[in-house]
Amino acid sequence: MTGEGSVKTEVPAAREVYLDYGAATPMDAEVIEALLPYLSEQFENPSAPYARARAARAALEDARAQLAHLIGAKPSNVILTAGATEANNLALSAVDGPILTDAIEHESVLTTAEAHGSKAISVGHDGRVDPHAVRKALTPQVELVSVELANGEIGTIQPLRQIAGVVADERARRLRAGEHTPLLLHTDASQAATTMAINVSSLKCDLLTLSAAKVYGPKQVGLLWAADGVVLRPLVRGGGQESGVRSGTENVAGAVAFARALQLADERRAADAKRLAALRDGLQRTLAEAFPWMLVSGPRSAAKRLPGLLSVSFPGLEARRLVVLLERLGVSVGTGSACAASRMRVSHVLRAIGLTDEEAAGSLRITLGRPTTEEDLAYAAWALADVVCRECARVGIDPQTGERA
Amino acid sequence: MTGEGSVKTEVPAAREVYLDYGAATPMDAEVIEALLPYLSEQFENPSAPYARARAARAALEDARAQLAHLIGAKPSNVILTAGATEANNLALSAVDGPILTDAIEHESVLTTAEAHGSKAISVGHDGRVDPHAVRKALTPQVELVSVELANGEIGTIQPLRQIAGVVADERARRLRAGEHTPLLLHTDASQAATTMAINVSSLKCDLLTLSAAKVYGPKQVGLLWAADGVVLRPLVRGGGQESGVRSGTENVAGAVAFARALQLADERRAADAKRLAALRDGLQRTLAEAFPWMLVSGPRSAAKRLPGLLSVSFPGLEARRLVVLLERLGVSVGTGSACAASRMRVSHVLRAIGLTDEEAAGSLRITLGRPTTEEDLAYAAWALADVVCRECARVGIDPQTGERA
Repeated sequence: MTGEGSVKTEVPAAREVYLDYGAATPMDAEVIEALLPYLSEQFENPSAPYARARAARAALEDARAQLAHLIGAKPSNVILTAGATEANNLALSAVDGPILTDAIEHESVLTTAEAHGSKAISVGHDGRVDPHAVRKALTPQVELVSVELANGEIGTIQPLRQIAGVVADERARRLRAGEHTPLLLHTDASQAATTMAINVSSLKCDLLTLSAAKVYGPKQVGLLWAADGVVLRPLVRGGGQESGVRSGTENVAGAVAFARALQLADERRAADAKRLAALRDGLQRTLAEAFPWMLVSGPRSAAKRLPGLLSVSFPGLEARRLVVLLERLGVSVGTGSACAASRMRVSHVLRAIGLTDEEAAGSLRITLGRPTTEEDLAYAAWALADVVCRECARVGIDPQTGERA
Repeated sequence: MTGEGSVKTEVPAAREVYLDYGAATPMDAEVIEALLPYLSEQFENPSAPYARARAARAALEDARAQLAHLIGAKPSNVILTAGATEANNLALSAVDGPILTDAIEHESVLTTAEAHGSKAISVGHDGRVDPHAVRKALTPQVELVSVELANGEIGTIQPLRQIAGVVADERARRLRAGEHTPLLLHTDASQAATTMAINVSSLKCDLLTLSAAKVYGPKQVGLLWAADGVVLRPLVRGGGQESGVRSGTENVAGAVAFARALQLADERRAADAKRLAALRDGLQRTLAEAFPWMLVSGPRSAAKRLPGLLSVSFPGLEARRLVVLLERLGVSVGTGSACAASRMRVSHVLRAIGLTDEEAAGSLRITLGRPTTEEDLAYAAWALADVVCRECARVGIDPQTGERA
């Protein structure tokens, strides 16, 4: 069970270590506590006319107000959705014309933009969207720019303020030129919300997506914030809930839980970000010392990466085999995004930043979360080193150099 | 606090009686028990590659298989959605051409059909969709017929098998005539599922909607069943979950809870239907004796109405005032559908069955549920009689005759 060669450690006591918080978070105990009363005691339909239903409506609107407050917005601009994917689809529905996005956005943005006949601009090797490239690609026809706040696969934090500046310049130009084509900026902040401040004013965007499922809240709960004047086109029609934009009996329990989860994220954000960055940096150092040939994807500077995320590649090894060997040791890590992983495709993100197929095939995504401890990471580092060494031995790669024997 | 005139009873002990199960159901304790482990222990993303995520995938697929089994379907034909409204929208997305529906469908069907440029056929005074009227309106261009199994506002159970026969005849005619226009039959069975058997083969439909929120399951969870060969057009694009039809990280907890809820509905259906029909009939008799001028909407024959539903009107009184007086006595009842109620509109259903504005304005929808007891209904009958008498006195209506003094 021990690794060979460079990694000489005692076999530690086995433990369960989950390191895929980028794919899913467990609901926080306090969030579950907030949720429970709304499942069976205060379950009424907020649109019904009696007192108990008005109380459910009040709980829903309180939750919306809390969510709005936490992102520096007005409650009436917050639309509750069944998750970030729907929110992204709804955001892009605001325009008919071309959408400008980048090659490493989430599939919900890329596929919807494609349906608009739009193209994605390429990104740097670190996954960064260059504001100059946005300026260049921003033709007079473009109606919406969508760039996520931080990438969930390789952790790149995007220069969103600079991109907002480019968008503002183009808007000013259109105004001066008497052109009436609108231009909106959308950002998906789902992956950033546990470790980066989210404020719609300072982000200077027009549309913003958040996911409860990524902040220790319930799955299939999310929100889309839209600035005053932005007209959204409903994807789902019916009873006219959510200001007519998103019909269906409201998920009061989900909204209340989301509000509590985002409140906790807000309170713990600074400390979480610092602690997870330190843990992640430690893991990266340990692995890089053991395997100097290991590639790290995303920005070199740790400050430009999501604190809890480490995307590494062991070219020549198969990530899917590493995942299975790791799970036998109790360690759960991802390979690229969960969506792509399940269909055994090469991640579009890793391809877009220029990884070869061999490099992409050997890539693991390790994402730390609020419950992750130092002991968890020490064990995970041992387990990772162990399985990488064993796989190197199996396929005939020198674990010190990464070269084939 | 006592009623006057015809109703001479002791003032009973106050109690909370919820009688709006058509608008929302509390989650069953067993359903919550089934849900809880998936919030924080088995929370993994079903698309992730490691063992714990595969277990989440297995739980999701087990839930889907259970749901499918309970409606006599194959698991691969069941699409999980964020509720019945989305399922109805998705069902109607299967076609481009005209949709034939009726005037008392849920707003999610009516508004989506309108967006297709389709018209709704009228219904009888009892809310029944006449199969002959369907046959007459079924032009060679129509691509989809949507008729709910039972109406949630007035309880009309539709002659769905006969309508399926009409659809089958038209399909046969098109085949003989060499016409290639497809024709699908959709039914929303959301309101029927606690008291009527739901089997896609015996219903002979191509698309069927169910809601977890109406069967003591979670809100914003539903399903669309689609027969083999039906091609659905995604409303929400992204990671390609639910066979590419409905993207977004799956709500495993919601699916597991839905399956448990539908299982319980299946086990208790026959007994619930019998018990609720008897309770409802008793309430109707009591009220009709006290107020012979009271109108009952929906089919005269109790067998053609949803067992737990009673839609009554006291012309000349204002339902919204009755609701407030009732809520002070602890009794919660609806006025038409919850969606319409919140916007203080006249229900499109009551209008379609020919109620005058005065009759519609005096209408209450009383829906019983699994937790409803005989004592609940005895108290509710007293409370209803009390508030109707008081309101009659206030506006100068004789409570015996309903005539203005």
